[in-house]
Amino acid sequence: MVKKTVKKAAAKKPAAKKTVKKAAVKKTVLKKPAKYVYSFGAGKAEGNGKMKELLGGKGANLAEMAGQLKLPVPPGFTITTEVCTYYWNNKRTYPKTLKADVETSLKKIEKITKKEFGSVKNPLLVSVRSGARASMPGMMETILNIGLTEKTIPGMIEKTGDARFVYDAYRRLIMMYSDVVMEKAAGIEPKDGEGIRKVLDSMLGDLKKKLGVTDDTHIPAEELKKLCAEFKATVKKVLKKEFPDNPMEQLWGAIGAVFASWNGKRAIAYRNIENIPHDWGTAVNVQTMVFGNMGDTSATGVAFTRNPGNGDSHFYGEYLINAQGEDVVAGIRTPSPMNRWSANAHSAHLPTLEKVMPKVYKELDAIQKKLEKHFHDMLDIEFTIEHGTLWMLQCRVGKRNGTAAVQMALDMVKERLISKEEAVLRVTPAQLGELLLPAIDPKAEAQAKPIAKGLPAGPGGASGLVVFNSDDAIKLQAAGQNAILIREETNPEDIEGMRAAAGILTQRGGMTSHAALVARGWGKCCIVGCSELELDNAKKTVKMGGKTYKEGDSITLNGTKGWVYDGALKMLAAGEGNKNLAKFLSLCDSVRTMKVRANADTEDDAKNARKFGAEGIGLFRIEHMFYGKNSEKPLFILRKMILAGNEDERKAAVNELFPFMKKEIKATMKAMAGFGVTVRLMDPPLHEFVPTLPQKQEELAKALGISMDVFKERAAGLHEVNPMMGHRGIRLGVTYPEITYMQSKAIFESAAELLKEKVKAAPEVMIPLTCDVNEIIAQKKIIRQAYEDVVKAAKVKNLQFSVGTMIEIPRAAVLAYEVAGEADFFSFGTNDLTQMTFGFSRDDIGSFLPEYLKQGILEADPFQTLDQRGVGMLIEHAVAEGREAKPNLKVGICGEHGGDPESVEFCHREGFTYVSCSAFRVPIARLAAAQAAAKDVLARKRK
Amino acid sequence: MVKKTVKKAAAKKPAAKKTVKKAAVKKTVLKKPAKYVYSFGAGKAEGNGKMKELLGGKGANLAEMAGQLKLPVPPGFTITTEVCTYYWNNKRTYPKTLKADVETSLKKIEKITKKEFGSVKNPLLVSVRSGARASMPGMMETILNIGLTEKTIPGMIEKTGDARFVYDAYRRLIMMYSDVVMEKAAGIEPKDGEGIRKVLDSMLGDLKKKLGVTDDTHIPAEELKKLCAEFKATVKKVLKKEFPDNPMEQLWGAIGAVFASWNGKRAIAYRNIENIPHDWGTAVNVQTMVFGNMGDTSATGVAFTRNPGNGDSHFYGEYLINAQGEDVVAGIRTPSPMNRWSANAHSAHLPTLEKVMPKVYKELDAIQKKLEKHFHDMLDIEFTIEHGTLWMLQCRVGKRNGTAAVQMALDMVKERLISKEEAVLRVTPAQLGELLLPAIDPKAEAQAKPIAKGLPAGPGGASGLVVFNSDDAIKLQAAGQNAILIREETNPEDIEGMRAAAGILTQRGGMTSHAALVARGWGKCCIVGCSELELDNAKKTVKMGGKTYKEGDSITLNGTKGWVYDGALKMLAAGEGNKNLAKFLSLCDSVRTMKVRANADTEDDAKNARKFGAEGIGLFRIEHMFYGKNSEKPLFILRKMILAGNEDERKAAVNELFPFMKKEIKATMKAMAGFGVTVRLMDPPLHEFVPTLPQKQEELAKALGISMDVFKERAAGLHEVNPMMGHRGIRLGVTYPEITYMQSKAIFESAAELLKEKVKAAPEVMIPLTCDVNEIIAQKKIIRQAYEDVVKAAKVKNLQFSVGTMIEIPRAAVLAYEVAGEADFFSFGTNDLTQMTFGFSRDDIGSFLPEYLKQGILEADPFQTLDQRGVGMLIEHAVAEGREAKPNLKVGICGEHGGDPESVEFCHREGFTYVSCSAFRVPIARLAAAQAAAKDVLARKRK
Repeated sequence: MVKKTVKKAAAKKPAAKKTVKKAAVKKTVLKKPAKYVYSFGAGKAEGNGKMKELLGGKGANLAEMAGQLKLPVPPGFTITTEVCTYYWNNKRTYPKTLKADVETSLKKIEKITKKEFGSVKNPLLVSVRSGARASMPGMMETILNIGLTEKTIPGMIEKTGDARFVYDAYRRLIMMYSDVVMEKAAGIEPKDGEGIRKVLDSMLGDLKKKLGVTDDTHIPAEELKKLCAEFKATVKKVLKKEFPDNPMEQLWGAIGAVFASWNGKRAIAYRNIENIPHDWGTAVNVQTMVFGNMGDTSATGVAFTRNPGNGDSHFYGEYLINAQGEDVVAGIRTPSPMNRWSANAHSAHLPTLEKVMPKVYKELDAIQKKLEKHFHDMLDIEFTIEHGTLWMLQCRVGKRNGTAAVQMALDMVKERLISKEEAVLRVTPAQLGELLLPAIDPKAEAQAKPIAKGLPAGPGGASGLVVFNSDDAIKLQAAGQNAILIREETNPEDIEGMRAAAGILTQRGGMTSHAALVARGWGKCCIVGCSELELDNAKKTVKMGGKTYKEGDSITLNGTKGWVYDGALKMLAAGEGNKNLAKFLSLCDSVRTMKVRANADTEDDAKNARKFGAEGIGLFRIEHMFYGKNSEKPLFILRKMILAGNEDERKAAVNELFPFMKKEIKATMKAMAGFGVTVRLMDPPLHEFVPTLPQKQEELAKALGISMDVFKERAAGLHEVNPMMGHRGIRLGVTYPEITYMQSKAIFESAAELLKEKVKAAPEVMIPLTCDVNEIIAQKKIIRQAYEDVVKAAKVKNLQFSVGTMIEIPRAAVLAYEVAGEADFFSFGTNDLTQMTFGFSRDDIGSFLPEYLKQGILEADPFQTLDQRGVGMLIEHAVAEGREAKPNLKVGICGEHGGDPESVEFCHREGFTYVSCSAFRVPIARLAAAQAAAKDVLARKRK
Repeated sequence: MVKKTVKKAAAKKPAAKKTVKKAAVKKTVLKKPAKYVYSFGAGKAEGNGKMKELLGGKGANLAEMAGQLKLPVPPGFTITTEVCTYYWNNKRTYPKTLKADVETSLKKIEKITKKEFGSVKNPLLVSVRSGARASMPGMMETILNIGLTEKTIPGMIEKTGDARFVYDAYRRLIMMYSDVVMEKAAGIEPKDGEGIRKVLDSMLGDLKKKLGVTDDTHIPAEELKKLCAEFKATVKKVLKKEFPDNPMEQLWGAIGAVFASWNGKRAIAYRNIENIPHDWGTAVNVQTMVFGNMGDTSATGVAFTRNPGNGDSHFYGEYLINAQGEDVVAGIRTPSPMNRWSANAHSAHLPTLEKVMPKVYKELDAIQKKLEKHFHDMLDIEFTIEHGTLWMLQCRVGKRNGTAAVQMALDMVKERLISKEEAVLRVTPAQLGELLLPAIDPKAEAQAKPIAKGLPAGPGGASGLVVFNSDDAIKLQAAGQNAILIREETNPEDIEGMRAAAGILTQRGGMTSHAALVARGWGKCCIVGCSELELDNAKKTVKMGGKTYKEGDSITLNGTKGWVYDGALKMLAAGEGNKNLAKFLSLCDSVRTMKVRANADTEDDAKNARKFGAEGIGLFRIEHMFYGKNSEKPLFILRKMILAGNEDERKAAVNELFPFMKKEIKATMKAMAGFGVTVRLMDPPLHEFVPTLPQKQEELAKALGISMDVFKERAAGLHEVNPMMGHRGIRLGVTYPEITYMQSKAIFESAAELLKEKVKAAPEVMIPLTCDVNEIIAQKKIIRQAYEDVVKAAKVKNLQFSVGTMIEIPRAAVLAYEVAGEADFFSFGTNDLTQMTFGFSRDDIGSFLPEYLKQGILEADPFQTLDQRGVGMLIEHAVAEGREAKPNLKVGICGEHGGDPESVEFCHREGFTYVSCSAFRVPIARLAAAQAAAKDVLARKRK
C-alpha cells in the first residue's frame, strides 16, 4: 500500500510583483518642463547616440555623427518623442514652449549655413523626417525642400544658377506635401493607387510623354515651372485647399504630419506585428537640405560598411550622379557601384565612385571605417555629395541576412571589434534558421504567383511531384524523386509517407495538427489547413488556383510563408554546407551555460541529434516506435495489448512487445553513448492506435481470438470524451503495472548490455502526466523491482539510473515540493501544461484562437510561444519549490517550446539545467541559450 | 482594440509551509521513558476523559468515570496507544518497562478487589479489550474471563458456589481466546464462517441438541466441564498448540492479540474508509471481570441517556437478567426494556428494570443524569449488575439517527446543556440529509434482497413502476403514479422524463454521468452504471436478478446504497414535514457567517431554493432553458443559431431566441426578488445540442434552408477532439459578440421591467471559462453597451449591475491579481478547475480513478471532495491575489463542491462570501457553514 501523504497542506500565497503589473496601466505624464528640441551640426550636438528613446534612432545617430564623431552632417534639430506623446495625450496640440524652441533651433541652423528660412535672397531649405526608437518602415514620412515658395524661388535660382533644378525641387515638394500633409489632414483615405499623389504623378508622366523625354532631368525649366503652377491648381481643386506658400506653415504642416502618422493604420499594424509599444512615439528631424542633384559633381548614395548579403568585410554600396535620395530607391536609373566589391551583373559596366570621385570616396571610406569602429557593428549609411562636398544624412545598424550575420559575427570577434557575447547576440535565431533549411530561390519566387495559401506549418521550401497517399510518396522517394504529399489531413498511418516526402500539404488541420507537429519535429516543409484545395483522393487529383493537378505534376511549397506555387521553382541548397555554421555554433557553446538536448525517438534521430550538437536526449518517446519504419509488427502487438480482454492476454502481448522495445532503446542509447538519455514511459493515445481499416481490424480480432462484435465492443470501450484528459500517461502504468515493469526491464537490460560492451549508459526513466507524488512512489517500486531483477540476472555492477517526472499537469506544478521529494529530475512538458493551464485543447483551438489573436486578447499562440505570465508562473513556482525540496534537482523542458528562442531564454532565467527540442532545432536552441547567457554577462559588465 | 497588458510579469514564488509537509514523513519516536500504564478504580484514576489520544476512547472514559465521577467502575488499567506504536515500530516487541508496569497495576487491582490473579483460592479474573482513539468496530477484540485455569477453577467454584457458571465462563474463554489469540497467532486466516470458533460453536450446538436445551444456562455443569475438556483437545488438534493454562500467559496473549489486531485486514480497511490515520494505534484495557450471569440478581444491559432513534429526552435501554454482555448483542433472547419509554412491540410484555430492580434502576438513572450533565451529550452506556451491585463498564457518546440528532441538539440548547455553536456541531450533514429525503423503511429493506447493484448517484429511496422512455414516465406521472425510468444512459432529451420519474436507473455511466449530475442537482433518487441490467428497449423489458421486468412492474431503488429491489418496498415520508428541521436550520443561520446561495435555472428552481433558505442564486445557467419543460421551441432556435452558416443567420436566430431567454430570466429574478441573482453567460456544449434523430435533423435543415449534406457538414464542423477544452464558455462570446450582447440585453431588460414593477433586481453578470483578463475587458464593453441601450430605451434610473467571472481555468487562478482588476466577483467553478488542475476528464475517469482510490494514490474522488491540497492551493492563491487587487472582492463557489460539507468548511476558512449549490443541498450547506463558523467560535473560546 502506498503511504499516505499529508492530508491538508494549506495552500500557499505567492507575493505579487506589483511593480510589473501596475506598469501596465501607467500613463506617461510629462512632469517638469522638458527640453523638446535638440540641435546638431558643425561639429556639435546637444544629443548623442544613446538617446534613442528621446530622439529616435535617426536623431540620436545624427547627433552622434555630428557631435561625437565630427562628421559632416547637414545642420538641423530633432523634436523629441515626448512631444509626440504629448501631442496624442493632448488632442493633437504641442507643449507651449515648442514653437519658440523650434524657432531658436532654426536660428542656429541659419547661423551655421549663413542662409535664412524664408529669405528672398538666400533661402534655407529643410527636410522633415520621422524617426522612431525602432525602425518602422510602415510609417516613415519624409518631406523635402521645405521653404520653397513663390517668394524664395527667385533667390534660389539666383543662388544656384539653375532654374530647372529649383523648379524640379518645387514640384517634388508639392507632390510630397500635398500627399503626406494635405491629403491626410483633409481626412481623405485614398485606396491603393489613388489619391493626389497619383494624379500629380500622371500629370508628370503626361508631360514627359508630350516632351518625349524619359529622364526627369531632361524636362526644361520653363516646362517645370508651368507644371508646378498646374500642380498647385490641381491640389486646390482636389483637396479644396491652397498649397501653402508660407515656409513656416509648410514646416509646421510637415511636423504635424509626422506626429499624426504615428497612429496611422499602417503604423499601428506594423507595431502590432513587431510588438513595438504604442506609447513610444516618434521624433521629428528637421535638417538643412543638401542636394545630390545639382549636376555632375553632385550625387547621392546608400552604403553598408560590410556586404549585407554575404558578410564580406568590404565597403559596399551604390550611388547615382545628379540625383536625390528617392531616385536611388525609385529604381528608374540603375545605380552605380561604390567600388569593385559592390558591382553586380547589372552594374558591373558602370563607373565606381572610387574612380569617378576618388577624393570623396576616400573621405567616405575613412568615415565608414570610423563609424564601424565607433559603433562596433555593420552600418547602413546614406550620404549626399553636393558640388563635390560630402554630407552624411543617416547611419544605422544595417540589416543583413543569415549568412552575412554569421560571417560578420565571426569576423568581428577575430578583429576584436566585439566580444564573443556580443557576437552571439548579432545573429537572430531566424537568421540562423536561414542557414539550416532548403529554400526557394527568392528571385524565382518573386516572379511566381501562389496558386493557394495555407498555414506555414513547417518552414523552408520544397519542390516535387504531387502524390496523394503515403505509399506513392515512398515509391517516388525510392525512385530518387521528390514527392509532395497531399492529404485531407494526416494520421499516424501516414508517417512513413510523410517521412519520404519532400514536402507535405494538407487541406485541413491547424498549426498543431498531426501533420504540423510531425513536420516541425523533422524540420520538414509543410503547409496545413489549405482549405481552398479541392481534393479528390479517388481520382488522385487536386484543384488549386483554377488548375487541376494530377499525380506526378510539379508544385513547389514555401512552408515559411504557407504558399503553394505551380511547377518546380529553383531551390537554394540547404545551409548544412555553410562553413561558418559549425564555427559560429561552437562560439555559442563557449558562451552558454545551459545544456541543450534533443527529443529523439530512434537510433537515426539520435545520430542526427548528435550531428546537430545535442548533449543527450531529453525525451525519448517509447511509443514512437509504433510510428516509424519497421513498425508494422510491434504496432500489431501493441494493438493486441491495448485490446486485450484481461490481464493474462495483456501480459502476453507485453512480453511479446519486449524484444522490439529493447532493441529500439538499446540502439538509441548506444548512438548517444556517454550522454544522458531520458526515456519516457509510454504515453500512447489508446484509441488512436485502434486500427480503422476493416482488414486490419479483422486480422487483429483473429489474433485475439475474438469475434468482430467483441472487437468493436472493446474498441468502443476505449473511446473517450476528452482523450487528452483521459486514461493516458502514467495512469496506464497505475492501472497496468505490468506495462511499466516491461518498459523498465527493457531500459535496464539495454543499459546492462551496453555496460558489458563498454558503452557508457545511465538511463533516466521519466514518468509522464504525473499529478500526485504517490503516482511516482507507486511506479518507482515497479521500476526498482525491474532494476533489481535485471541487475541480478545480468550480474552487472555500477548500473546507474535515475527516475524523474514530467511536470505537465498543473497540480504537479502546484505540489512540486512534494513531487520533488520523490523525483530526481523535472522535465516540463509545456505542451500539455499549456493545454491544461489555459483549458485549450491543442486540436480544437482553430475555432477561436485566431479571433483571440486578432482582437489582441492574447498576444501570441501559447503553443508557439510559452505563456510566461500564466504557464510561466506555474513553472517558476515549481522550479523554486522543487529546488527547495531538493537543491540539486535537475530541471529541463521538452516539447516544442524547448526550441523556441524566447522560451529558451525564459528557461535560462529560471535556472533550468537543460532544454530539449527536436534535433533540427538544436542549433537554434544552442544559439538562444548562448544569447540568454550573453545577456547576463553583458548586464553584469554594464553594472 | 483591446489594450495590451504587461508582456512579461515574472512569475511569483509562494512560500512553502514546510512544517505541514514534513510532518508527513515524521516518524513517531519515543524519546523519554514514558508512562505506559494508567490504573483506575475505587474512586481514583491516573488518567482522565481528555486523554483519548493516549488511553483510547474507552480507557479515557473509564478513567473519567472512576476518577472524576466516582462511579462504580470495576478496577483495571489501560495500556497506552504509544505501546501499540512501539509494538509496530519495533518488530512486535514491547518497551522494556512494560512488564513491570503491568504487574504493578495488576497488584493495585488485587488490592482493591482483594482477589489475586492466578490464586487457587480467590482468583481474580480480568477482561482484555481494545480501545482506539476513534470507535473502530471493525477491529474490536475482546477476551473475557482471563485467569481461569485448571488451578483457579476450583477456587472460583468454591467462591461462587456455582460450577455451571464457572465452566460456562471457562468455555467462553476457550472459545474467544482460541479464536482471537491462538488462531491469529498461528497465522491462520479462515474464510468467513470457518475457523476454530466455528468448530467450537457447532460442538456447543451439538451438545445442546443432544441435551434438548435451547438456552446455554440450561446445560448442566458436568456437561460443560466435559465440553471444556473437549474444546481444549480440539484446539490442540486444530491449532497444533495447547490452550494456555497459565493466567499470565493468557493475559499477555490477549494483550498482544489486541495490538496485533490494529493492523488486521478489517481494521486497515475500516480506517481507510473512515480516514483514520494508521499511526494512531490502539490502547488495551485490562479490567476486573464482573458477572451479569450469576443468577437472577445479576443482569447486564446497554442504555442511552436519550432515545437515539427519535431524540426523546428519556432514559432508554434494554437489559437481560442472568446474562453476559455478548448475550445482549447475540439476539437469542429478547432483551427487556429499561423502563416504559424503552418498550417496543417485541418487548412491551417484558418486565422493566425499573420494576424488577427498582433500587438499582434508581442508581443507574442518577448515574445517567450525572453522565449527561458531565459530558454535555447523549451517552451510550454499558453496565452489569452482579448480585444486585451495579457496575459501569463503558460510556461513550451515543450514536443517533438524524431525527434524534436534531431533536437532541435543539433540546440541549433549550436545557442550556450546550451552546448553539455546540448544537450545530451535534448534527452531521449526513444526519441532516436523512431528514431531507424520502427513504425506504429500514425494516422493510432489511428483509428484502437486492436484485441488482449500481452506483449510488442520487440518494434517497424511490419506489414505482418501470418505464423505458421519457414519454412513458411523463404519462405515468400525469396519471398520478410513480415511475422508475430505466435507460441505457440518459441525455438532454430525457430531461423531462427524468424530472417526471420518481427514480432513475441507468445501465451505463459513472458518478458524474449526465443522469448522475442531473439527479444530484434535483436531489432525485438515482442509480447509474448498473451494468448487470439486461435491457431491451424495443421489447420494453429489463432482466435483473434472474427475473424479467416489463413496463409497469414494480421495483424499488435505494439511491443511497445503489441497490435495486423487487416490488414496492414500504417508504418513509420525506423529512420536509419534520417540525424541527426549520428550527434547527434557523439555529444554524444564527451561527454561520458565510452566505448560502443556490444554483437555480428556472422560476420553479428559484422558488424551491427560497423554500430551502437560499439567499440568492449563485449560478443561473442560461443554457438550461434548453433542457427543461417547454424547451422544444427555444431549443430549435438555439440549434439554428449553432448551425448558422454566417453572421446574419446567427444574428437572426439570436434575435429569435431573445424573448424566450428574457422570459426565463425575468421570471427567475422575480422569484428571487430582493436577493442577488448571478446569471452566467451561456456555456453550451455546442456539439451536444446538434440533434441526433434524423427527423429533427431534417426539420432543422429545412428551417435553415440547407440540404442534409450541408447540414451534416456543418454538424461535423462542430465536432471537437476534446470538447471540454474547446470552443465553449466565453470563447463563444469572443467569437460571436452578438450572443453576449443579446444575453446581456435580456438580463438588463428583465431587471429594468422588474424595477418598474417595484421588484428589487440587481443582476450579476458572470463570464464563464475566463483564462485572461482581456477576455473580461472585451466582454464588458459589449455588456456595457447592452446596458446603456436598455437604460436609454427603458428610461430607468438606478439600474444596478455587476460583472464578475468564473474562476475555473487554472490560468485565471494564477493570474487572479490581474483578473480581479476587472471583475466585481469571483465564483470558483471547482468542477472544471478540478478537471484542468488534475488533467482529469470527468467523463473519462472511470477507467483509472477507481484504481487510484484502491491503491491509495488519491484519498478521494476530487470531483466529490474538493482537493484542498492542489486545487485548494490555486483557490487560496486566487482569493489572496484577488483581494489584494480589490479588497472588497466578492468570492463564491458554484458547482457540486458548493454543497459538500468539507468543501464548505474550506470555503469558510478561505474567507468566501458565499457558497452556492443545488437547491436541495442548501440546508446541508447552511449546516456546514454554521459548523465551520462554530468551530471558529469554539476555538477562540478555548484560547
